[in-house]
Amino acid sequence: MEEILNLRYALDTFYFLVMGAFVMWMAAGFTMLEAGLVRAKNTTEILTKNVALYAIACVMYMLVGYNLMYPGEAVNSFWPGLGFLLGSDHDPASVLSTSGADWYDGTYYSGRSDFFFQVVFVATAMSIVSGAVAERMKLWPFLVFCVVLTGFIYPIQGFWKWGGGFLDGLGFSDFAGSGVVHLTGATAALAGVMLVGARKGKYRKDGKINALPGANLPLATLGTFILWMGWFGFNGGSELVVSNVGEANAVAAVFVNTNAAAAGGVVAALLAAKFILGRADLTMVLNGALAGLVAITAEPLTPSPLVATLIGAVGGAIVVLSVLGLDRLKIDDPVGAISVHGTVGIWGLLVVPVTNADAALSSQLIGAGVIFGFVFLASIATWGIIRGIGGLRVTEEDEYRGVDVAECGLEAYPEFTSGTK
Amino acid sequence: MEEILNLRYALDTFYFLVMGAFVMWMAAGFTMLEAGLVRAKNTTEILTKNVALYAIACVMYMLVGYNLMYPGEAVNSFWPGLGFLLGSDHDPASVLSTSGADWYDGTYYSGRSDFFFQVVFVATAMSIVSGAVAERMKLWPFLVFCVVLTGFIYPIQGFWKWGGGFLDGLGFSDFAGSGVVHLTGATAALAGVMLVGARKGKYRKDGKINALPGANLPLATLGTFILWMGWFGFNGGSELVVSNVGEANAVAAVFVNTNAAAAGGVVAALLAAKFILGRADLTMVLNGALAGLVAITAEPLTPSPLVATLIGAVGGAIVVLSVLGLDRLKIDDPVGAISVHGTVGIWGLLVVPVTNADAALSSQLIGAGVIFGFVFLASIATWGIIRGIGGLRVTEEDEYRGVDVAECGLEAYPEFTSGTK
Amino acid sequence: MEEILNLRYALDTFYFLVMGAFVMWMAAGFTMLEAGLVRAKNTTEILTKNVALYAIACVMYMLVGYNLMYPGEAVNSFWPGLGFLLGSDHDPASVLSTSGADWYDGTYYSGRSDFFFQVVFVATAMSIVSGAVAERMKLWPFLVFCVVLTGFIYPIQGFWKWGGGFLDGLGFSDFAGSGVVHLTGATAALAGVMLVGARKGKYRKDGKINALPGANLPLATLGTFILWMGWFGFNGGSELVVSNVGEANAVAAVFVNTNAAAAGGVVAALLAAKFILGRADLTMVLNGALAGLVAITAEPLTPSPLVATLIGAVGGAIVVLSVLGLDRLKIDDPVGAISVHGTVGIWGLLVVPVTNADAALSSQLIGAGVIFGFVFLASIATWGIIRGIGGLRVTEEDEYRGVDVAECGLEAYPEFTSGTK
Repeated sequence: MEEILNLRYALDTFYFLVMGAFVMWMAAGFTMLEAGLVRAKNTTEILTKNVALYAIACVMYMLVGYNLMYPGEAVNSFWPGLGFLLGSDHDPASVLSTSGADWYDGTYYSGRSDFFFQVVFVATAMSIVSGAVAERMKLWPFLVFCVVLTGFIYPIQGFWKWGGGFLDGLGFSDFAGSGVVHLTGATAALAGVMLVGARKGKYRKDGKINALPGANLPLATLGTFILWMGWFGFNGGSELVVSNVGEANAVAAVFVNTNAAAAGGVVAALLAAKFILGRADLTMVLNGALAGLVAITAEPLTPSPLVATLIGAVGGAIVVLSVLGLDRLKIDDPVGAISVHGTVGIWGLLVVPVTNADAALSSQLIGAGVIFGFVFLASIATWGIIRGIGGLRVTEEDEYRGVDVAECGLEAYPEFTSGTK
Repeated sequence: MEEILNLRYALDTFYFLVMGAFVMWMAAGFTMLEAGLVRAKNTTEILTKNVALYAIACVMYMLVGYNLMYPGEAVNSFWPGLGFLLGSDHDPASVLSTSGADWYDGTYYSGRSDFFFQVVFVATAMSIVSGAVAERMKLWPFLVFCVVLTGFIYPIQGFWKWGGGFLDGLGFSDFAGSGVVHLTGATAALAGVMLVGARKGKYRKDGKINALPGANLPLATLGTFILWMGWFGFNGGSELVVSNVGEANAVAAVFVNTNAAAAGGVVAALLAAKFILGRADLTMVLNGALAGLVAITAEPLTPSPLVATLIGAVGGAIVVLSVLGLDRLKIDDPVGAISVHGTVGIWGLLVVPVTNADAALSSQLIGAGVIFGFVFLASIATWGIIRGIGGLRVTEEDEYRGVDVAECGLEAYPEFTSGTK
Repeated sequence: MEEILNLRYALDTFYFLVMGAFVMWMAAGFTMLEAGLVRAKNTTEILTKNVALYAIACVMYMLVGYNLMYPGEAVNSFWPGLGFLLGSDHDPASVLSTSGADWYDGTYYSGRSDFFFQVVFVATAMSIVSGAVAERMKLWPFLVFCVVLTGFIYPIQGFWKWGGGFLDGLGFSDFAGSGVVHLTGATAALAGVMLVGARKGKYRKDGKINALPGANLPLATLGTFILWMGWFGFNGGSELVVSNVGEANAVAAVFVNTNAAAAGGVVAALLAAKFILGRADLTMVLNGALAGLVAITAEPLTPSPLVATLIGAVGGAIVVLSVLGLDRLKIDDPVGAISVHGTVGIWGLLVVPVTNADAALSSQLIGAGVIFGFVFLASIATWGIIRGIGGLRVTEEDEYRGVDVAECGLEAYPEFTSGTK
């Protein structure tokens, strides 16, 4: 039996690490997506932000966030005990002497692998923000916000659900984080966009909305495929166990449904763009794929593949309407992140009860509301304080020249755009 | 023993899912390869086609194709029974009570993981088509063809071999799909190219052939590396089992040989290009890598690593000759897909008997012929009907302006190419 | 027990193959990094070099290198016996009859999977070279050097440590290759740079140093993320076993520390660039990530995550200073490869004793010195002979026009740079 436990522990740990590496890969996906959708003159800065935010997320979550979100001993269900740094991993002898019923009680795989999986999720949430505030927010204030979100805001609300806090107690259901990760990122982004304002020239005084097309659509497409691939880790790893028939079936179902929802999102967004905008708009199609993925993330296990396709398809249709709607409200989100992760994240949460009998619409509404409310208030306060101290927005001249030269001193494509900026 | 079966099932399922995710990643590879090899003005459309075809493949294979190709109960060996949607997965209790001899009889891993692996193969086949008809075929007719290929043409011929149909009965050997996947895609592409015609300006009246160089070779190179990586899943996953010493050795051999064949293809294509064209032509080198991969796909298990390198090298040499030869025939394939997947796919099928004593040249010829014949006829009929209804080709003016503006309303690189299109 | 051994062998083999595929993926990372950091006119050639060097490494290591580095029977500890090609894999019957104590004695996983993992390491070492000599070295002489490095130089020094040679006997400690792989690559690069000379226009006669900015920073960023991801395989796979609680914990610790060191490198390089250069220099940030990864590679297991972050951070600071310092010495390395892999590789080796009580600073100094000395001498001799026979450097005119047209006959971005080269 000891040999069996060794293998089981090893397989579940390895599964978790591979899935985590897929999620880490999503950082590249967000980076490419956002770099492709901004204008050439603002590309270096968005690249710098994305690399730096991932690194900061890893440092802050190690120093503070992980212990806030998964405290060894919580002080109470609202505010977990503060811990510092990762402890040691499970002692093999104690693991192997665990009797059957206690096996899946937190020690059936490496604690380090759990940290690795969780830390890449934090970075995902923060990656959502950078796209929405692109092309006009300063670099360093953005990174300060990153410290606060990844070290405190994300882990606190994350604790409420995944750490065993009160949202979990209320029956709120969020398998892999339509709310905990995606709605959180989108809400923080919304708060930032509201305080930093729209890009110059986006909303004209006569009411017309200028398209400010992205400079490099192959990059944006690559980013979408990277995210699609990484999402197999994001959702597939959230099953947390693979080492027996039932769990292996579950992980497989999650893979199939995640893929099906993204496919549904693509088809729906393609058709919606054709009918509403009159053209096969690639940026809408890409956001449709991501919307499908966000939509299924709250519950990728219980739907049949057909239903998963439909859940994703509705997400893909919603995202087209949401992108157009936010533009009417003059909420300027260059990459559509608030629509993809926020609007569709809520859709994902609310549709859970349709296939999962353990979930209730009321709990889902409360969960969505609590996450939105807390993250919005905490974020707007944080952004506001940062703005008060050093300002959030580059000067009008820097915005015109491009934030790359102003903030980073390097052009992203020095030979391609001479004279056309 | 039940614990052993649980672990075995879990390991094989997890292996299959990871390999499937690698194959899914090939969709990004084809997209980048094709986007890099077309001209800037036709890039958005090829991106849109690739994302959409992957999504359509996933939907159609779920709705129709999977059940056509792997019917629970086949009506006969030529035309399988029509089924609808995926059923439920294996019941753990029944799996765990399976006795030794029946273990590997289809229930030793998750049925969902099998679907996931198969569905990404379908998308691969269809991805081959998009490159060959690039720069002049309309978007929507292409997507209609995609529905037919992924829902019907691919699964029907796939059933003949992998579903247990008559080609399988004849001893036709195709480990991972040099024929079932690559020749199928290339044949459908050939039919499309023949009906849609060559790009304007490609073949001059004086007999000269104009090079129409791709806009972004780093993307094409990235695409090749993605495909190379994804191919470890494509071939490595096709062993279907990894959970014992013999099977683990087999999967490892497949990885080594897949890599060796690609390396051989690169070296041979580099030398062939140098000798024939007088230059180290990067596009030939990239196609050489892919040719090596296609060549080994029909039998990546039985060759030694040295023989695998040689099989790939011959593929790399063939692809250079085939690309040049098809241009003489005025078969205009902007990315060389028909040569890589078709010509070299046949080479891969025919060389199987050299290392695999269970295969015979006659069966391989029959298999290649049947696949080519059926797919060509079915495709030319489908393309023909679509052409009759709505036309396949953009107007001459749209082709001149670029299909991006005409078909998608979005330029891929709006800031890089002003005035140089 | 036989069932247990089957599963253990299968899990360790599968783990090794997946980790190897991640390392193979680093080839794409180096390619994108280097392609992004050179000027547009030299991009096709760097792409060609990277694809070709990977292929050549695979062929040469199969033909010669693997047997040099891991000889079945070493003649002596300085020069291993010459073998030819890969033998057959482990016989299942003999594997399954292995008693407990001998299990981990080289036959606990597929020999083919070991080759696969090792061969992608060789390619990594060679990839380091291509960036440093970019923009002025001829293609074919570079490829000849590649044959020598991957077939002989790398395997010989690799044998001294990992093959059980004298450096291993001296207690030199290098978990995943800060020295064996990264310092080796950087040293070979340094020798090449010294013989080929600096790019025209880099160092002005008045002592000023011209920045020659890279053409495509999103590609360079993508390359960094690919390398970051691939490094989980590079370090994580170097534990060599995952199939029990202790080993699974170890692999998880390696993942966490690898990620933490890269994050530390990013933060430190960002701050160092800001303080020293006055700007958030993206290329420094990217090199900071890679420096963190190189730094932790010599010992990713024993540090705590916090210490790993600090080791990476010091690496990130060092790389900024090293890049600036090498420029003062007029050692022209367009991508910073010598600093990232060489200077920081040495830092990684020397810091091992801080967390690993089995290592001693003296052994680490000897190891670093031996690797540097041998590889430098062997490389400078090889480069020198090649230069004597056919020259290393393109003509001044070709360098001005760009090596792409001169060496490859294809522009990488034919539509983006007209008139701006």
